[in-house]
Amino acid sequence: MNIDMIRAAAERLHGHARHTPFLSSPALDEIAGKRILVKAECLQHTGSFKFRGGRAAMSALDAAQLKSGVIAFSSGNHAQGVALAAREFGAPCVIVMPSDAPAVKIANTRALGAEVVLYIRATDDRDAIGAHLSLDRGLTLIKPFDDPQVIAGQGTVGLEIAADAAALGIISADVLVCCGGGGLTSGIALALAADAPDMLVYPVEPEGFDDVARSLATGSIQTNTRRDGSLCDAIITPRPGDLTFPIMQRLCGAGLVVSEAQAQRAMVAAFNHLRIVLEPGGAVALAAALYHPDATQTDTTIAVATGGNVDPALFAQTLKDYA
Amino acid sequence: MNIDMIRAAAERLHGHARHTPFLSSPALDEIAGKRILVKAECLQHTGSFKFRGGRAAMSALDAAQLKSGVIAFSSGNHAQGVALAAREFGAPCVIVMPSDAPAVKIANTRALGAEVVLYIRATDDRDAIGAHLSLDRGLTLIKPFDDPQVIAGQGTVGLEIAADAAALGIISADVLVCCGGGGLTSGIALALAADAPDMLVYPVEPEGFDDVARSLATGSIQTNTRRDGSLCDAIITPRPGDLTFPIMQRLCGAGLVVSEAQAQRAMVAAFNHLRIVLEPGGAVALAAALYHPDATQTDTTIAVATGGNVDPALFAQTLKDYA
Repeated sequence: MNIDMIRAAAERLHGHARHTPFLSSPALDEIAGKRILVKAECLQHTGSFKFRGGRAAMSALDAAQLKSGVIAFSSGNHAQGVALAAREFGAPCVIVMPSDAPAVKIANTRALGAEVVLYIRATDDRDAIGAHLSLDRGLTLIKPFDDPQVIAGQGTVGLEIAADAAALGIISADVLVCCGGGGLTSGIALALAADAPDMLVYPVEPEGFDDVARSLATGSIQTNTRRDGSLCDAIITPRPGDLTFPIMQRLCGAGLVVSEAQAQRAMVAAFNHLRIVLEPGGAVALAAALYHPDATQTDTTIAVATGGNVDPALFAQTLKDYA
Repeated sequence: MNIDMIRAAAERLHGHARHTPFLSSPALDEIAGKRILVKAECLQHTGSFKFRGGRAAMSALDAAQLKSGVIAFSSGNHAQGVALAAREFGAPCVIVMPSDAPAVKIANTRALGAEVVLYIRATDDRDAIGAHLSLDRGLTLIKPFDDPQVIAGQGTVGLEIAADAAALGIISADVLVCCGGGGLTSGIALALAADAPDMLVYPVEPEGFDDVARSLATGSIQTNTRRDGSLCDAIITPRPGDLTFPIMQRLCGAGLVVSEAQAQRAMVAAFNHLRIVLEPGGAVALAAALYHPDATQTDTTIAVATGGNVDPALFAQTLKDYA
């Protein structure tokens, strides 16, 4: 896992993944008391950075593998990122989802051309179903984060941050990243270590699901007690990855933790001042930037807004409660 | 009023106005049955294209004029665009607003450093107040649309459309523009006539406020009967401008008209598939693209999403009613 893999992924993604913009507003700078730049990955294809890793991993497969097809386990952003990438490659795509996944996410994934295989959470063995399908049809598994090519794809966000910040004359900054399994966080950290060594990456998680923060603090992989029940469903993973954790340990600052209410307030701030749609899990980095400005050191914070796939009813309720 | 003024405005705006991206989604293409590109001007500074015209007009003033300051009449997007531009130039800025303007818009304009002068709609003479202030303090009026430098600034949107479309290999397209007084529409039409002559611009208005469509159809300037009562407040003007109308007449296709419900459905489509926030008046072009695809001829529609300054309660209600 090294910077050359990220640069190679960037070349393969060129013209396919969107180079997302930095957004900013004087109102956000005022809330934080420092300069805030938001890397708007919610504007990426399929509404999250996950398309980068999915397409990067798939573009590293050979023709025979693509012809046989791919499989992924996800009820959310990874599912849609992999489904779109597979469609672009003309590769068959199976997404294994729990039967109680939101209907809209099942529909969106099917609309992208994927075959959705549902399992019953309580009684079915998800991994057995996946293994059976993979063996039977020769499908290649696209992991959500703990895979070198996936990390390389997500790391292209870091290359863009370094280049676009340099164009603004920004060399030194704190870079806050919404963190689940750590694929995006570790990829960005690797990219910035090479291209913007004066920037420091901080993983950001929601309260109660701070496995990465606790793992970094204790120096060994820690696990969350709860597995669900967070609004920030996009970044709720049981534990950091075996590949991603050592990278974060080597390169990142301490993990930051925000409340769900702060994530929702950040969604409203992004709505009012940037006119973008964020999901709760995609807003935790901005929440930390706005409401924990003292947790970081420099006068510029770059917050990665990782995704915007949010249920309209939840978004409406968030506006009602926090606007 | 010519293309050289638009190119000169683009040079003056370079590094200040944001070059906004094209956004797209397979889901939108499917609704329309053709390729849809959305020019996301809601991501412009202050949340609408108005910053371009405001800053272009102000950057054409001399140092003495800037020192004396500027004045604008607006309760909406023009107010914020002018206020931010004035702040960047260090120019005093007076915005004259009706006292019943939404509190949030008054607050936002003040937050940008402008002095807000309120008048009572029923009893005060707005123009007299403005004239008195201008004379008294030597303020330069920044008109909302019927001014060559303002049209030139808005026209920079057209230069970006031509360049970014060409980079995608798109030469021929229908370009749909949310239209109030016609500053943006005529500016884009002038820019495309020079840089993308196979593109045709269509102004889009809400039902009941289709002065531009009727003016184009009859060949002479028509006026709206109603002056308020539309959700699309950003683009409700009594009539097209004396400068903008002849340009639209010479260069544009017929005016398109959408219902308020279609504008709101387009807001939801933009929320779900592009993760951007549009106000009703900023969504009418996308509404025409999605729900009146047969009104235009080519297989690619470029819809300009002009603004995203929408009351959170209205946005929440729109999600509730149309998602």
